[in-house]
Amino acid sequence: MFISMEGIDGAGKSTQAVLLLNALLSRGQKAVLTREPGGTSLGGRLRQLLLSPEFPDETPEPLTELLLMLADRAQHVSKYIKPILAQGITVISDRYSDSTIAYQFWARNTISFQGLQEINYILNFPLPLLTFLLDLPVEIANARIKEKNHLETDLGFQQRVRMGYLKLANPYEKKMGAPFHQRIYTIDATLSIEEQHQQILNIYDKHIKEQ
Amino acid sequence: MFISMEGIDGAGKSTQAVLLLNALLSRGQKAVLTREPGGTSLGGRLRQLLLSPEFPDETPEPLTELLLMLADRAQHVSKYIKPILAQGITVISDRYSDSTIAYQFWARNTISFQGLQEINYILNFPLPLLTFLLDLPVEIANARIKEKNHLETDLGFQQRVRMGYLKLANPYEKKMGAPFHQRIYTIDATLSIEEQHQQILNIYDKHIKEQ
Repeated sequence: MFISMEGIDGAGKSTQAVLLLNALLSRGQKAVLTREPGGTSLGGRLRQLLLSPEFPDETPEPLTELLLMLADRAQHVSKYIKPILAQGITVISDRYSDSTIAYQFWARNTISFQGLQEINYILNFPLPLLTFLLDLPVEIANARIKEKNHLETDLGFQQRVRMGYLKLANPYEKKMGAPFHQRIYTIDATLSIEEQHQQILNIYDKHIKEQ
Repeated sequence: MFISMEGIDGAGKSTQAVLLLNALLSRGQKAVLTREPGGTSLGGRLRQLLLSPEFPDETPEPLTELLLMLADRAQHVSKYIKPILAQGITVISDRYSDSTIAYQFWARNTISFQGLQEINYILNFPLPLLTFLLDLPVEIANARIKEKNHLETDLGFQQRVRMGYLKLANPYEKKMGAPFHQRIYTIDATLSIEEQHQQILNIYDKHIKEQ
């Protein structure tokens, strides 16, 4: 089973990913935790280029950033996710393809939605069976981040990412009542860590039963 | 004016690129030389990841390689090629988009031709006005490379790259007699360096006149 955790920075994705991993392991299930960008050895180098360029002139342009994210995913899918899933082991990824849509399309508008969909179709990356969107107001997320690293965040940008995620979690198919396999579940990340974890575990169990 | 030099390793692209650059500069024209991958500061890091991975598990998968090449191009186009062209300066690039088609499509078959065309259309990279394809038999190119770095080359692979380039240089539009602006000129790279240079300069001059 392939699961992804999504949300803006400071939403608590890593915390919930670890709690879910431990819950599954304590049940005797096989599961691993990974992340994007940087889920592979090569991806770790790309993560550094993306998130902490050494020199200002090495800052990736928007389109470069998108393509580096996709390169990181290509390596991650081929070298890690697919071989692990093939062994019947559950993969929990801290960020995956919905991040690209929320950040590169909704927040940065680097590429058209149709263009991004087309590229995703051509690259043929597997979709998670289940995605948890940890949603909370950007002000709260920002306060959490500040406590940790004292960095200023662009609230307008974070807000566009958040809105992008919420739109992804509520596609028109659902509203129109058409047959639709729900993949993305929105979790209220203002709840306590334990409450969120219980909700995630309940949704996971419900999904397993339905399979 | 945007010019690219293409061909298999050992075809003499860099030599001819420098000769063309010097010829233009000696006429008082403004021109610069660049290359792919690695035409920018970030691209230099990508070039290292692509061509000399430090550890075996960092070797890029075929799709990763394609996306890293495109990321390198996105940075190169945005940070270097477009701003330089906008100043009226001629750009000569040692490898550009035809390399991607020859290597990733024809030689490696990483992606379908239609998929690659679609991605190129979405990414909207500028096409060179003029491309010189330095063509020579792989055995001769291989002998030249061996002299330099004593590395073994996969001749079958090089042969697929060469054939891919030749197909690109002879698209069906030309054969069918439809209106067609010739962009790629094939140069016989078994000729002397000076003879090749004269041919390249003549084609360049003819193009300038026609503009």
